[in-house]
Amino acid sequence: MKQPHILCTENDVAEYVILPGDPERVLRVAAYLDKWREIGYSREFRTITGKYKGMPVTVTSTGIGGASTVIALEELIACGAKYFIRIGSAGAVKESIEIGDLIIPTAAVREDGASKMYISENFPAVADLELTNTIINTCRKLKYPYFSGIIRSHDAFYIDDEQDRMRFWNKKNILASDMETAALFTISQLRGVHAASILNNVVKFQGALKESIEEYVETDNIAKEGEKREIILALESFYRFYKEQGKCL
Amino acid sequence: MKQPHILCTENDVAEYVILPGDPERVLRVAAYLDKWREIGYSREFRTITGKYKGMPVTVTSTGIGGASTVIALEELIACGAKYFIRIGSAGAVKESIEIGDLIIPTAAVREDGASKMYISENFPAVADLELTNTIINTCRKLKYPYFSGIIRSHDAFYIDDEQDRMRFWNKKNILASDMETAALFTISQLRGVHAASILNNVVKFQGALKESIEEYVETDNIAKEGEKREIILALESFYRFYKEQGKCL
Amino acid sequence: MKQPHILCTENDVAEYVILPGDPERVLRVAAYLDKWREIGYSREFRTITGKYKGMPVTVTSTGIGGASTVIALEELIACGAKYFIRIGSAGAVKESIEIGDLIIPTAAVREDGASKMYISENFPAVADLELTNTIINTCRKLKYPYFSGIIRSHDAFYIDDEQDRMRFWNKKNILASDMETAALFTISQLRGVHAASILNNVVKFQGALKESIEEYVETDNIAKEGEKREIILALESFYRFYKEQGKCL
Amino acid sequence: MKQPHILCTENDVAEYVILPGDPERVLRVAAYLDKWREIGYSREFRTITGKYKGMPVTVTSTGIGGASTVIALEELIACGAKYFIRIGSAGAVKESIEIGDLIIPTAAVREDGASKMYISENFPAVADLELTNTIINTCRKLKYPYFSGIIRSHDAFYIDDEQDRMRFWNKKNILASDMETAALFTISQLRGVHAASILNNVVKFQGALKESIEEYVETDNIAKEGEKREIILALESFYRFYKEQGKCL
Amino acid sequence: MKQPHILCTENDVAEYVILPGDPERVLRVAAYLDKWREIGYSREFRTITGKYKGMPVTVTSTGIGGASTVIALEELIACGAKYFIRIGSAGAVKESIEIGDLIIPTAAVREDGASKMYISENFPAVADLELTNTIINTCRKLKYPYFSGIIRSHDAFYIDDEQDRMRFWNKKNILASDMETAALFTISQLRGVHAASILNNVVKFQGALKESIEEYVETDNIAKEGEKREIILALESFYRFYKEQGKCL
Amino acid sequence: MKQPHILCTENDVAEYVILPGDPERVLRVAAYLDKWREIGYSREFRTITGKYKGMPVTVTSTGIGGASTVIALEELIACGAKYFIRIGSAGAVKESIEIGDLIIPTAAVREDGASKMYISENFPAVADLELTNTIINTCRKLKYPYFSGIIRSHDAFYIDDEQDRMRFWNKKNILASDMETAALFTISQLRGVHAASILNNVVKFQGALKESIEEYVETDNIAKEGEKREIILALESFYRFYKEQGKCL
Repeated sequence: MKQPHILCTENDVAEYVILPGDPERVLRVAAYLDKWREIGYSREFRTITGKYKGMPVTVTSTGIGGASTVIALEELIACGAKYFIRIGSAGAVKESIEIGDLIIPTAAVREDGASKMYISENFPAVADLELTNTIINTCRKLKYPYFSGIIRSHDAFYIDDEQDRMRFWNKKNILASDMETAALFTISQLRGVHAASILNNVVKFQGALKESIEEYVETDNIAKEGEKREIILALESFYRFYKEQGKCL
Repeated sequence: MKQPHILCTENDVAEYVILPGDPERVLRVAAYLDKWREIGYSREFRTITGKYKGMPVTVTSTGIGGASTVIALEELIACGAKYFIRIGSAGAVKESIEIGDLIIPTAAVREDGASKMYISENFPAVADLELTNTIINTCRKLKYPYFSGIIRSHDAFYIDDEQDRMRFWNKKNILASDMETAALFTISQLRGVHAASILNNVVKFQGALKESIEEYVETDNIAKEGEKREIILALESFYRFYKEQGKCL
Repeated sequence: MKQPHILCTENDVAEYVILPGDPERVLRVAAYLDKWREIGYSREFRTITGKYKGMPVTVTSTGIGGASTVIALEELIACGAKYFIRIGSAGAVKESIEIGDLIIPTAAVREDGASKMYISENFPAVADLELTNTIINTCRKLKYPYFSGIIRSHDAFYIDDEQDRMRFWNKKNILASDMETAALFTISQLRGVHAASILNNVVKFQGALKESIEEYVETDNIAKEGEKREIILALESFYRFYKEQGKCL
Repeated sequence: MKQPHILCTENDVAEYVILPGDPERVLRVAAYLDKWREIGYSREFRTITGKYKGMPVTVTSTGIGGASTVIALEELIACGAKYFIRIGSAGAVKESIEIGDLIIPTAAVREDGASKMYISENFPAVADLELTNTIINTCRKLKYPYFSGIIRSHDAFYIDDEQDRMRFWNKKNILASDMETAALFTISQLRGVHAASILNNVVKFQGALKESIEEYVETDNIAKEGEKREIILALESFYRFYKEQGKCL
Repeated sequence: MKQPHILCTENDVAEYVILPGDPERVLRVAAYLDKWREIGYSREFRTITGKYKGMPVTVTSTGIGGASTVIALEELIACGAKYFIRIGSAGAVKESIEIGDLIIPTAAVREDGASKMYISENFPAVADLELTNTIINTCRKLKYPYFSGIIRSHDAFYIDDEQDRMRFWNKKNILASDMETAALFTISQLRGVHAASILNNVVKFQGALKESIEEYVETDNIAKEGEKREIILALESFYRFYKEQGKCL
Repeated sequence: MKQPHILCTENDVAEYVILPGDPERVLRVAAYLDKWREIGYSREFRTITGKYKGMPVTVTSTGIGGASTVIALEELIACGAKYFIRIGSAGAVKESIEIGDLIIPTAAVREDGASKMYISENFPAVADLELTNTIINTCRKLKYPYFSGIIRSHDAFYIDDEQDRMRFWNKKNILASDMETAALFTISQLRGVHAASILNNVVKFQGALKESIEEYVETDNIAKEGEKREIILALESFYRFYKEQGKCL
C-alpha cells in the first residue's frame, strides 16, 4: 500500500533512513550516494532511496516540527524502516557551542505537542543507545568536534518569553534547541524502532535569534560545513552499524 | 529585513494572505490570480505575491502542523500582513460531512503544541469574527454547501487511541480535525491580526483513516472540487472584504 | 416536570432567554416587556416570562459565578430554551474601556471551574456566531459604542495576585473580566444551544477594584445607563433574530 | 467602607457569621434570634445581624458555588468577621446517609474553581479544628445523628459523567457532595479565620439526582427537619464557642 | 502471611502504631515501654511490639519520604493496625517556631509523589480528627508548648528554589515542612484507618538549612528534648485514646 | 563540613560511589572490597569507603524512594563524588524477564515525586551514556544475561490500580519498575554528575506482587545470585571506567 503522505511502499524504503527537515537537504545527501532515485515528493515530504557504499539507504525530509516528523516516521515504519538518524539544525543553549558545531543528543526535553499526543510527559525522549554510540564513535574517528548531552525540542521560538526560557534551560545543562528530536525519540521508543539525531548548530546562545538565522542563511559557510559534516557522519555511522549488524537485518 | 524562513521582506507581502498547508496548492491558487511572482521557496514555505481582481494578495504555504504554521504566520506579520485565511484539508468528526464539503471553523480545540508555547490552554482559539462572517456570506452567495462550528486541531493522528478520541469529540459537537487552525487562531488573536480558516473535508468520519486519505489521493475528483471551492471562496471573501474595508487599509 | 432550582416547567419558558446575573435586574428587564409574570424565584434564580413586541421571552437570573449559571442554563434547556443572551457586568482589562461601555465577547478565557467540570480546558468558550452578529449589528443600529473581542471569565477577584493577573491579560489583548460568560459559552456549545453575552463595564482597568465597584454602586448613573443599554440591546437583538428566523422556531 | 457586594460595614457584622447558601434560609435562621435587622440584600447576598441568647451573630447568604461564596467571605472578613459556620445542602455519596441526616465535614476535595484561583490544588481544604470539635460535641449533646469525614465540593452536577464520578468518590470514602465548602475552608485557612460546615443531606446516593431534588422540594418534611437541625446546631455551637472563648474576642 | 518489607504478621502488630522515621528512634521509644521485642528490621523498617502501661503498642520506622512510609503503612494495615501516630522531625516555615517546639498538623499540603500515586491532588491530606484532638488535649495536659495547623510535606529540600518556596508557604500560613505526613494522612483516609502526626522542629525558618540541621545534629540538646516530648506525647495520647475507646477494639 | 544525613565529609568520599537501596547490601558490597571502613550510619544512610583492586570507592545506601535517594545523592556530590551506579531491585514489566535477570536502564519514566520537585516532567530522566556503555560492555564480558531499555520509577505499588498501570506500561515497551532510578538520573543530569543503574529483577510480570516479593524474601537463591551479579558488575564497571579515565580525575 502506498503511504498517503510520503507516497512510498514497502518496496521503496530501506531499513536505514536519514531524516533531514528540509526537502532541499535530501538532495544534498543524495550527492554522497552511489546512486539514487526519488520515490515521492509531496508537501514537505521528499523521499529518495539509494545506496551508500553498497548499503541501501532512504532519505526522507520531515518538514519543521514534531507533527510532520511523526507522520513521516509512522509511514516509514509502515514501509519497514527500522533505523533512523535525523540530521537537523539547532540553536545553541550553551555558551561554548559555536556555529557549525555538531550536537549528538542523548535525550530531549519534550516541549513539543506531537509526542504528548502519544504518551504522558514523564516518558523519556531518549535516543537509541547503540545507534548513538555508533555516531559518537564515528564522529571521533572523523575528528569532528561535537557536544553530546540533553537538548530540548519545542514547537515555537517566536514566543514573547523566548529569552527567559533559553536562560532557564541554559542553567539546566541543556545543550541546544530543535523542533523534531523529542517526537522522533519518543515515538521510536514506543514503536520499538531505533532513532538517533545529529544537529548542526546555526544560532549562537544569546545571539539575537532572527538576525542569527538570517546571518546563517546569508553568510553560512561555516554552517554549511556543519551540514556537510552531519550528512557524512550520518552516512558513515549507518555504514559502520550496517557492517557490524548487517547479517541479522 | 528578509525573514529567515519565508525569505520575504516587507515589500513582498500584501496585507491579505492565503495560507494553504501544501506548497503545491500555492500554485493552484496562483492559477486564479491576474498575475503573480514567486518570492521565496524554502523548506515547506513557498510564497507568491500577486493580484486578484486588482487586490494585492500573498499566498504562503505553512507546511503540516502548528509549529511550521506559526513560523510562517509570525514572519508574515513581521512583513506587514494583517488578514489571513487558511485553506486546508480536514477529517470529518461528524457523520453527515461528506468528502469535498467545506467547513468554516468558528473556533478550535487546542490539542496542538505550538499554541501552548504562547498561552495557557484556557485561552480560546477563536476565528476573527468579521473575516469569518465575510467567508460565510460569500460561501452562501457562491452556493457552496458548508458546515460552520467548532473543530479540533491536533499534532498526531497515528496514535493508538485515535478512534476513541474521534468518538469522544464526535459526542462534543466537534465538526472536523485539522492540524493548523488552532495555532493560527490563537497566535493571530494574541498578535492582533485577523485570521479565519476554510477546510475541505478529505476523510469521512469513522472511515479508516489511511485508506480514506489514500483513496482521496488517488481518486480525488470530489476532494479536488472541494479544494477548488476553498480557493475561490478564500479569494472572493478577501475581495469582498477588501472592497468594503479597503479605504482604511 | 418542574425543574428543581429554577422551578419552571416546559410550559413556562420561551425559546429566547435573557440571563442577567442579578435577580433585581430581572425586574429592570421586565419594565421593557409588554406583559410578564413571575414563574419562580428561589435562591438566586428569579424567572419571569413575558412578551417583547409580541415575541415570547423569558428572563432568568443566574447568580454570580459559573456554578449557578450552569444550573440555570441546564434547567432552562430542559424546559426547551434555545437562545440565550447574558446581560452582565464586567471589569475592563483594557485601558480605553470606560464605565458604561458595552462589551460583546466573541469568546472567553476559561479561568472558571464550572466549564472544566464538563470538558478539558483546550475546548474553546466561543459565542454563537449568528446571535453575536445580530447583537453587533443591532448595537451599531442603536449607535451604542461597544468593544468586541475576547474576555476572561474567572471565579475570584479578591486573590492576592489580582493586579498581576490583570496586567498579564491586558498584554494578551483581553478586553474585560466577568464570572459567567465562559461557562455559558462552553456548555451551550456542548449542548447545541445558542448563547451570546453583552457586558456593561463597571470598573476601569487598573482602578482600585473595591473602590471602583463601590463608586459604581453609589454614584452609578453612567453604569446604570450601560445596564439600560444592554437590556435594550438584548431585547432588540432577540427581536431582530426572531423576525428573521421566527418561522422555523 | 461599605462592602460592594454584601453592602455591609464593619459596624454591621459580628465576629460570628452563619453562612447559608439560600437567601430565604437567612430568614429561617432569623426565626431563632432574639432580635435582628436586615443589613443588606443584593443579588444572592442577604445579610442580617442580631443576637442569639445575647451573643452577636450575623447571617449572610452566599448563593450557590464557590465564586459567590468567596466574595461574601472576603467582604465579611473585611468587616471584621472571624468565625464562620456554613449551613448548606448536600447530596450523599455514601449509601447509609439518609435524607435529613447531618454531615459535619472535616475537609473537602477541591473540585471547585474558586479555591484554585487562590492556591494550588495540593493545599488542603480543611475545616477549623476547634470550631468543628465544638459542632460535633454540640451535635452529640443535641442527640442529632450525624456523619463526619471528608466531602467533595464541585462546580457542576449536570455533567454527562456525574454517575461515574459519584461512584469513584464513593469508593474513596467521600461522604457527600456540596458546592461551597472547599472554597470556604481553603480561603479561611489562607486568611487566618475559622470556618466549619454543617450539611443537611437532601439527595440519597445513587438516587436519580433531579428526581431526588424535586422530591425533596415537594415533599420535604424530613429535609426541612434536617435544615432546622443544622440551624440550631450552628447557633448552639457558636454560643458554646462564644461562652468558652468569649473573653479573648 | 509475613509482610515482604516490614517482615511482620498479624500476630506481631498492635492496633496502635507509632511511626518514627528513623530506625534508631524506635529504640528511643522502646525505652518508655514496659517490655518489648523486635519483630523485624529490614532496610529502613525496624518494628518492635510491646506494652505501654498495659496497652499493646507497635513501633515501626518508616524511613525518609512518602514512598517508604506508605509501604510501612500498607503492610501494617494488612497486619491489623488501625491507629497511627507519626513522630518525626520538621523544619519551621513560621518565624515564631523554635527548635524543639512541637507541631501537631491538622492537614498537609501534598507536595509529595506517593500520595499522588493514589489520588488526585485535590483530595485533602487531613489528620484523623479524634486522634488529633486526643493529642492536643494530652499535649495541653503535659504542658508542652505546641503549634497546630497546616504543614507541607515534600520530596526534596536541596532544590535550587528552596528559599523561594519556603517564603511562598510562609505567606500561606503553613507552619512547617516534613516529608511523610501528607502521604500518611492521604492513604489513611483512603484506607479508613486513623492517623495523626507529631513533629519536633529541628530547623528555624530562614535559617540556613544545612547548617541548621548540622547544628541540630551536633548540639542538639533542645531538639533531643523535643524528640523526648513527642515520644511521651504519642504514647500518652494513645493510652488516653485506648482507655476511652478500648472496649470496642 | 560533615553532611547532615550521610554524616560524611569531603575526605570520606571517593569519586566513584555505589548506591544500593538497602543498608544491609552495603555490607554485601563490602565483602568484595580489598579493605573498607564505615564512615556513617544514620537512618537508611550507611556509608562505607574502601578500595576495589586499588580503586577508591564509596558505598552509600539510599533507602527506598526518590526522596531519600536524592538526599544521599546531593550530600555525596557536596563531598566530591562524581560517578554513581545504583544497584537495586526491580519488578519486571515485560513477560520475558526472569527472577535474577539484570536490567540496565537507559532512561526512566518519571512517576516519582522527588524529580518533579527539581524540574518539569518533560525533562528526560536519562542515564549517563558513557557509564552505561561501560556497564553494558562489562556485563557482556562477564557473560551475565541482561535487558537494556526504558524503565519506570514510581512512589507506590500498593495502589488500587497497580495491575492496570503495569499492563499500560507493558504495552509501552517499559522493561521494569523501581523506585529510585528516575530521581537519580534526573538530578545527576541537572548537577552535571554521572549516574547509571543496574537492577536485579525480583518480581515476575503479572505475578502477584506481595507473594512474589515474599517468595523472593524466603526462597531467594536466584535473586541473591542476581544481587551478587549486580554488585560485581558495578564494581568491575567502575574499575574499567577508572582505568580508562583515571588520569583526568
